[in-house]
Amino acid sequence: MKDVRSAEILCVGTELLLGDIINTNASYISRRLAALGIPVYRQAVVGDNPERMRQAIAESFSRSDCLILTGGLGPTCDDITKEMVSEYLGLELELNEEALERMKSYFSSTGRTMTKNNEKQAMSPRGARVLQNDWGTAPGFVIERDDKTAILLPGPPIELEPMWRERVEPYLFERSDSVIVSKNIYILGMGESAVEEKLHDMMMELTNPTVAPYAGNGECRVRVSARAKDAETASRMCDDLIAEIRKTEVGEFIYGIDVDSMENALVLSLREKGLTLACAESCTGGLIAKRITDISGSSQVFLGGCVTYACSAKEKLVGVSHETLEKYGAVSEQTAREMARGVRLALGADIGIATTGIAGPGGGTPEQPVGTVYIAVSTAEGEEVKLLTLSPKRSREFIRICAATNAMKLALNT
Amino acid sequence: MKDVRSAEILCVGTELLLGDIINTNASYISRRLAALGIPVYRQAVVGDNPERMRQAIAESFSRSDCLILTGGLGPTCDDITKEMVSEYLGLELELNEEALERMKSYFSSTGRTMTKNNEKQAMSPRGARVLQNDWGTAPGFVIERDDKTAILLPGPPIELEPMWRERVEPYLFERSDSVIVSKNIYILGMGESAVEEKLHDMMMELTNPTVAPYAGNGECRVRVSARAKDAETASRMCDDLIAEIRKTEVGEFIYGIDVDSMENALVLSLREKGLTLACAESCTGGLIAKRITDISGSSQVFLGGCVTYACSAKEKLVGVSHETLEKYGAVSEQTAREMARGVRLALGADIGIATTGIAGPGGGTPEQPVGTVYIAVSTAEGEEVKLLTLSPKRSREFIRICAATNAMKLALNT
Repeated sequence: MKDVRSAEILCVGTELLLGDIINTNASYISRRLAALGIPVYRQAVVGDNPERMRQAIAESFSRSDCLILTGGLGPTCDDITKEMVSEYLGLELELNEEALERMKSYFSSTGRTMTKNNEKQAMSPRGARVLQNDWGTAPGFVIERDDKTAILLPGPPIELEPMWRERVEPYLFERSDSVIVSKNIYILGMGESAVEEKLHDMMMELTNPTVAPYAGNGECRVRVSARAKDAETASRMCDDLIAEIRKTEVGEFIYGIDVDSMENALVLSLREKGLTLACAESCTGGLIAKRITDISGSSQVFLGGCVTYACSAKEKLVGVSHETLEKYGAVSEQTAREMARGVRLALGADIGIATTGIAGPGGGTPEQPVGTVYIAVSTAEGEEVKLLTLSPKRSREFIRICAATNAMKLALNT
Repeated sequence: MKDVRSAEILCVGTELLLGDIINTNASYISRRLAALGIPVYRQAVVGDNPERMRQAIAESFSRSDCLILTGGLGPTCDDITKEMVSEYLGLELELNEEALERMKSYFSSTGRTMTKNNEKQAMSPRGARVLQNDWGTAPGFVIERDDKTAILLPGPPIELEPMWRERVEPYLFERSDSVIVSKNIYILGMGESAVEEKLHDMMMELTNPTVAPYAGNGECRVRVSARAKDAETASRMCDDLIAEIRKTEVGEFIYGIDVDSMENALVLSLREKGLTLACAESCTGGLIAKRITDISGSSQVFLGGCVTYACSAKEKLVGVSHETLEKYGAVSEQTAREMARGVRLALGADIGIATTGIAGPGGGTPEQPVGTVYIAVSTAEGEEVKLLTLSPKRSREFIRICAATNAMKLALNT
């Protein structure tokens, strides 16, 4: 069995070309392949169109020995991925009884009745390895023909991702001769081009490990990747380089390594310290609580919070004084301070954080333009308030995300 | 000037091939092109690699007369999109003073100092139309050569999307000879394959307008698209078909047309009715409040809410009685009922909604498996509670999204 040297990803679906859905499968598969040391040279999307699918399949196989296809395995009549790949590889489709049985039992287990059109999903290219789908109805397939490998997976990410982890990776592991280990350095407070300038020489000179900065949602992430025979060696190579980066001016802005996100870094740190958190949100409107509770197990450290969107809510839920709101306004250092303290006391938490500001697009004034946000943290020792002045040109979403991330950073540093 | 008959999208960036970021640009551009009646036959992603970029550019132009490229216009040395396209079209790059000045003023307006490497972004292919970037530093370009058009846009969606709306569309509008109008029917409570079966004949027989169902996050959406010379005609064609669909079994599950999302449908309806809303969230942990406040102007109808994640928070913030929690537990009809009423009274809102359940992956029991969620709505007339039993195989994220969407639906129907 030859090793997979490179792969291409072909996502099938007119809904992708119409922009009705975002292609998260390509990024998911690419990320997992990188970890296996299998480079992806091309991602492509075509519609459920026989002619264009034929062309794309042929093109991909002309460049890569492994083609991963997603989508078009479903029950509807315009799902033709399996048919097109079988045609290209010269294989016939036959009914797979086992797959059919599994599909029937899946439907009954989810209390639904299987419609006739679903049976189409149990047709299998002759000689293909069927990848059982425990998360949906359409099974996947691995087809090996000569030196070509086609891997077919269902389109819904909720099925594709577990299928990839539990069906495809065990198969690919044997076939990969080296691994890439990547570690991510999480940075808040220094922009991408500034980070890039500080690390420019490293980026230019190094080939293994490599350094690459990425920006997003007001944060910067530096990805360090090393390739080696085994994961231990590659991991050590990354650690050594990260130690170097910590010594640069970037160092002071690093808030974690492989922490995935600020919310995850915060939950991990609170769990370590044995502290509890509560939040009072105005302009972020529940985003902080949502991001923290995205993390399974956050209930150990997160007691809850208040979304005090209206002024009345600020008084009723977290006891901001009417005078403060009258005198300083809802978007003020004083209100942020009282919100953080109020929610901490209301819930008996060790730490309270708060946000109040103008997310836009409306509501800005010359004195307080869109992007003006006060964030506060409160502990038994007292309160700390910080003013963020984000560009009014930024979107409502961006301003809310930045405000939430920075507020969590305040709690992280407590 | 010839009309753009079809387009391809080429997104450039090694970070896309490594799966470090999700390609939202391809879906955004595709969606906007569809509305202009310009079909997209292919989306592709390549890395910042000269050889592979050359190949991809040549391939695309062999199929389509318009190629839209995103990314690789930035300041870093591996940003080479502009260079590769200019090479293919045989154009030289020259410094664009105007673009340079704009970039300098952008930096000062956002209070940052422009690093030297940024100047690279002001280089322009000879004869190209420069697309001013008021949302970032890198300008875009439209290059017309013979019958080929290349449109280059910066990669960050926060820059690309306004650039598309305000720079590219005015340019493309003149060039399109027909429009596609699409309308989306939002459905909750009936699955995709069931919807597809009910509408199967329409899907098969109709070519203009067309019908296509999509599933996602526990909802189903049916997209109706019509092509005509003018928007009014196409719009009327869509409306007639939607009227037909309302008469089918799907009809009763429709909650809106072009409402974008359940949260938007809810905010619009509350604004119409002049009602205010408050929410108490346990398993959704702020997701409802976050989704509602994603909508600019939601402050008119949304007063705020409580994230009562811990049991103590349920008592302290929304007055769930200790006895109820003791006797029935945090995940119970009674608790959901008291949460909805409690938050409504606490904030003096017209409507209160609540969620309490087990989002998983941990926390499930034989009696209450992961996916068990109680949702409640409270008004002056009283409370209504509904039990959702989602598949324990579903992800934490999916269960939280479904719970939030269904809770908002309860409020929408009030």
